[in-house]
Amino acid sequence: MTQIVKARKGIITGEMKTVAEKENVSPEFIAEGLIKGTIVIPKNNRRTFSCEGIGKGLRTKVNANIGTSAESCNHLKELSKLEAAVKCGAHSIMDLSTGGDLSMIRKTVIEKSPVMVGTVPLYEVFADKIRSGGKLKDITPDDFFSAVVRQVRDGVDFITVHCGVNQDLFRSYGSLKRVAGIVSRGGSLTKLWMTETGNENPYYEYFDRLLDIAYEYDVTLSLGDGMRPGGIADAGDGLQLKELKTLGSLVKRCRGKDVQVMVEGPGHVPINEIQFNMEIQKKMCDNAPFYVLGPLVCDVAPGYDHITAAIGGAVAASFGADFLCYVTPAEHLCLPDENDVRQGVTASVIAAHAGDIAKKVHGAAERNIRMSECRKNLDWDGMFLHAIDPETAKNRREASESAEKEYCSMCGDLCALRHEL
Amino acid sequence: MTQIVKARKGIITGEMKTVAEKENVSPEFIAEGLIKGTIVIPKNNRRTFSCEGIGKGLRTKVNANIGTSAESCNHLKELSKLEAAVKCGAHSIMDLSTGGDLSMIRKTVIEKSPVMVGTVPLYEVFADKIRSGGKLKDITPDDFFSAVVRQVRDGVDFITVHCGVNQDLFRSYGSLKRVAGIVSRGGSLTKLWMTETGNENPYYEYFDRLLDIAYEYDVTLSLGDGMRPGGIADAGDGLQLKELKTLGSLVKRCRGKDVQVMVEGPGHVPINEIQFNMEIQKKMCDNAPFYVLGPLVCDVAPGYDHITAAIGGAVAASFGADFLCYVTPAEHLCLPDENDVRQGVTASVIAAHAGDIAKKVHGAAERNIRMSECRKNLDWDGMFLHAIDPETAKNRREASESAEKEYCSMCGDLCALRHEL
Repeated sequence: MTQIVKARKGIITGEMKTVAEKENVSPEFIAEGLIKGTIVIPKNNRRTFSCEGIGKGLRTKVNANIGTSAESCNHLKELSKLEAAVKCGAHSIMDLSTGGDLSMIRKTVIEKSPVMVGTVPLYEVFADKIRSGGKLKDITPDDFFSAVVRQVRDGVDFITVHCGVNQDLFRSYGSLKRVAGIVSRGGSLTKLWMTETGNENPYYEYFDRLLDIAYEYDVTLSLGDGMRPGGIADAGDGLQLKELKTLGSLVKRCRGKDVQVMVEGPGHVPINEIQFNMEIQKKMCDNAPFYVLGPLVCDVAPGYDHITAAIGGAVAASFGADFLCYVTPAEHLCLPDENDVRQGVTASVIAAHAGDIAKKVHGAAERNIRMSECRKNLDWDGMFLHAIDPETAKNRREASESAEKEYCSMCGDLCALRHEL
Repeated sequence: MTQIVKARKGIITGEMKTVAEKENVSPEFIAEGLIKGTIVIPKNNRRTFSCEGIGKGLRTKVNANIGTSAESCNHLKELSKLEAAVKCGAHSIMDLSTGGDLSMIRKTVIEKSPVMVGTVPLYEVFADKIRSGGKLKDITPDDFFSAVVRQVRDGVDFITVHCGVNQDLFRSYGSLKRVAGIVSRGGSLTKLWMTETGNENPYYEYFDRLLDIAYEYDVTLSLGDGMRPGGIADAGDGLQLKELKTLGSLVKRCRGKDVQVMVEGPGHVPINEIQFNMEIQKKMCDNAPFYVLGPLVCDVAPGYDHITAAIGGAVAASFGADFLCYVTPAEHLCLPDENDVRQGVTASVIAAHAGDIAKKVHGAAERNIRMSECRKNLDWDGMFLHAIDPETAKNRREASESAEKEYCSMCGDLCALRHEL
């Protein structure tokens, strides 16, 4: 039984209680959200950890992607990134490894992670085939599903499945021009396989098989956006919206089978189009939780895309996005290192919190009032206590010329707060 | 004669041509903006440098504050910050020094700066009096003005004057509760002096003297927001809006005397209140250019306030803010160092550009299209060329495992763009 079925039977599970307590809402509010499909609790029923809810009325959550690539393959580094991400406040980890012993890495990440773990099973299918010298067209629909079964048995809590990338979409694709093309790894690989084999996307064609597997393990399906814009010029184009429409129809099928589902979204989007993107997703996907990658509000800031994504993520969250996938300073350049992970998670945590203030999530504004009170009183310990990253804040002050003084070295004795009458 | 007077007489000045060329618009468009008051060109008529326009239809500009404090006083460090800020794309520098030989530092900054320079003359008045052991109440209205005259004679291009902090405001203040109090240094010092002396704020009472000085040197008045909220809880309160109303009336007096004027704004503002803040300023101040400090979209991220300000600044720019004052990672903690300046300017440049895309400033979206085309073609040199910070982007790639390969170490051989058919 999934959390949805239990909620519908009136059972308040430990998971619902955990989430309710963290959010300072009633367990009944969580149960109601599960039934409506506006809230998911990604947690494989084989795992035990302190779970989180994602969705309407809850704090915006943050995911950190980690994982090896063929070029950069050291699973111990990935475990350090996992630890750093969780320490900085990530609520979720996706293991996107494509290099090395994928099964071992995945199992280790799941074992070590104190938070929910997501994967993209398709990566394993393709990485294994390419590395073993096989041909793409030899990959069978069963391979698509056996990877899913393997990964959910390992305990993965949610999986990204690019179900909306179907042949119907490509019949339209020929007539649409894109500047950046397809930038989703899953979307691109799926299209490649479909083109080589002439087959329909197995995750779309046999969607019920996914539903059965997800139901058995209470794994949350995260409907991937293979056609997300990879440049602001492509934002909101026909490809993106056509795929979203398909995802909306698949959300309904998940609901019919009591499978938890969320929907993934862009990508690169100009600020003035973010509100529209949030509203159309909620509309077309019947208020399923929305998981966004960024969005990045411009394309020209490689080295600083944690900032372009924080801008977009904050605006997206303020208009209803529920789950932000972090972006690191390494985006568009290389695999992130541990410091990138810290910078990326922190930027996304800030964006999520700024969004929570705007959408008036319980307790969000209050924390800022506490901080402002400490500022007014020049109560430095209090300021560190309420800071998103107390260590960094404290280190900066302690290294400054005014470390021992009441005020700081910015204004010195002309501090506005000292003079406040 | 100010640029406004010349524009009205149908004279197209070198300044108007320079600005028009940089913005890729006609000089007549600039002249019209000057006459309407929707555009300013801050440039003291004693200075020669490549000026910039600020206002409607133009690229959003970025200011970097530098300057010593009593606690951290090394003018050579400030000159390094000036250089770093300009290199990272700052269009303007404010010398906010309050420690050391203020006159020497200011003159040196003006001499070395290739961009417009702003100051807050009031700081010199107060710093000099406090450091010389004098009493606040001995400061005279003439002291307020002699500092202005001294600084504009040195060549300052724009000055922040907290003219809206008046006795009428404080009659309301008693009945308003604020969490963070007054956080503007100029606002706080002005209030202190007014309370001690019982006098009206000289910059308000004798505003015509400011107008005469500004006219003579064609210095732009930047009407300071002494009551800007210092915590999101105080955003949009009676104090802030009452001061804004006063500033609106002073804008009209500037227009009457052909003095260039812009208006300063918050501060700390939740994302969902930024649009309102931009619209009410434009309405109350008859579309005078809006110069915002941030706004910071939450209070709890000391150490990362370049990011909270980039979020707010991008949203503000997208809704019409014309000029962003940067915020550095050192904000709320200590005087920024050179690296803080680089991080702060870059974050603000990103925010300004993201805003420009949203408000459809000429050429903004196009640069992103060029970048996306290079990305699609895995043209790394092209990507660096279009990057806001080419050096950082290039260094990251060159230090990675895939430096010599066509693709990057994020996805390796599973690169979505390599597989694009």
